Amino acid sequence: MTYQLHYWPSIQGRGEFVRLALEAAGADYVDVARKPPSKGGGAALMKKLHDPANPRASFAPPFLVDGDRVIGQTAAILLYLGPRLGLAGSSEADALWAHQLQLTIADVATEAHDTHHPLSIGSYYEEQRDAALVRAEDFRNQRIPKFLGWFEEALRRNPAGDRHLVGGALSYADLSLFQLVAGLRYAFPKATRRAMTKLPRVARLHTNVARLARVRAYLQSPRRIAFNEDGIFRHYPELDG
Amino acid sequence: MTYQLHYWPSIQGRGEFVRLALEAAGADYVDVARKPPSKGGGAALMKKLHDPANPRASFAPPFLVDGDRVIGQTAAILLYLGPRLGLAGSSEADALWAHQLQLTIADVATEAHDTHHPLSIGSYYEEQRDAALVRAEDFRNQRIPKFLGWFEEALRRNPAGDRHLVGGALSYADLSLFQLVAGLRYAFPKATRRAMTKLPRVARLHTNVARLARVRAYLQSPRRIAFNEDGIFRHYPELDG
Repeated sequence: MTYQLHYWPSIQGRGEFVRLALEAAGADYVDVARKPPSKGGGAALMKKLHDPANPRASFAPPFLVDGDRVIGQTAAILLYLGPRLGLAGSSEADALWAHQLQLTIADVATEAHDTHHPLSIGSYYEEQRDAALVRAEDFRNQRIPKFLGWFEEALRRNPAGDRHLVGGALSYADLSLFQLVAGLRYAFPKATRRAMTKLPRVARLHTNVARLARVRAYLQSPRRIAFNEDGIFRHYPELDG
Repeated sequence: MTYQLHYWPSIQGRGEFVRLALEAAGADYVDVARKPPSKGGGAALMKKLHDPANPRASFAPPFLVDGDRVIGQTAAILLYLGPRLGLAGSSEADALWAHQLQLTIADVATEAHDTHHPLSIGSYYEEQRDAALVRAEDFRNQRIPKFLGWFEEALRRNPAGDRHLVGGALSYADLSLFQLVAGLRYAFPKATRRAMTKLPRVARLHTNVARLARVRAYLQSPRRIAFNEDGIFRHYPELDG
């Protein structure tokens, strides 16, 4: 069965955590909204989101369709896909730990988004730039080191070794931490470089994930959308201090 | 086995979603940090959080201890407890839908917190009040109606009837939606009253949950901490428009 991922076709955004898991596992999937409109792409995304025939419609993209199942919320999609793709460790405890890591990554992503939209999601960045400068300073100085330091410690404490977050094998939590670091490096290159000097395990994990054959092929393909100023991680130099 | 909940002892906060599930199920649990310091309460919370012997320490409270398991992130705790407490429906699909609802409630809670702390989590409200006024206006006018309207629609579309969010029985998603409405009514009484006039199913669910015998007993007990201006939902009249 082909998985259908429904997400904005022009950004990495939250959907990228799901794309990376599907790509790293070599799963059979289609990124529906990136198809031409005649094949369900483009504006059909919102129509599908609000499909009145779906009793369990999601609040927002991304959502995954697997047969008659429709699942929304990025972390819930990965909770569902993880064991099916072999990316959630080898026990219930591992799966829950992978999920807990993902939820913490989701918290960082939300805070990263708030740096450029601290006052209103519906207004432009330029209208809330002064507030963004203050929020971004706090994020750079307090939150990035605290969050990434926690992941460094989680790697350090892993009884199965410090190359993975969950047991001794790749999980979607590793893929998502790779994506988080990639996003922070794009949005806050100076602040992230400073923070990473104290985070050798996180830095190595980021490098190692990028070298995985399927991940590397994906990152070099046109399927990987470039970071841009419509997504979660946006590079506004003034927000990097 | 007695569940141990570890959370800030003076606020409802995110821990309240877990407390409500444990209380509604009549579970055997202890709210550890509310005990006297001699019994592990008070400042021992942070010591326990950072316990170097725990290879899977949480980023922040709340966390749940069940035997040798330590689980952090509110939604992950409820994912774990849901089936064990009989509060997650009757199938894998139900459990995932309950979780998806919980993750969306968590999103609203984060945005509600951002209304009084739009610029920095580490600074006082009074230092970011001007920004808070702008953020709160957006939250009241755009986000509360959009989020609560989505829950109304989820109830309306439930094939098992519009009195529950997951199938035909109580789930932790119902309890959490009760708590969300209670929090919004405390923090934004005027805006929430306006929104609720169009949300009869959400309003009825809120009333019905409060009438459940165990929930009612809990709400009337000293175990229920009152809303206050240290939690997620804070009543600053100026933020209610």
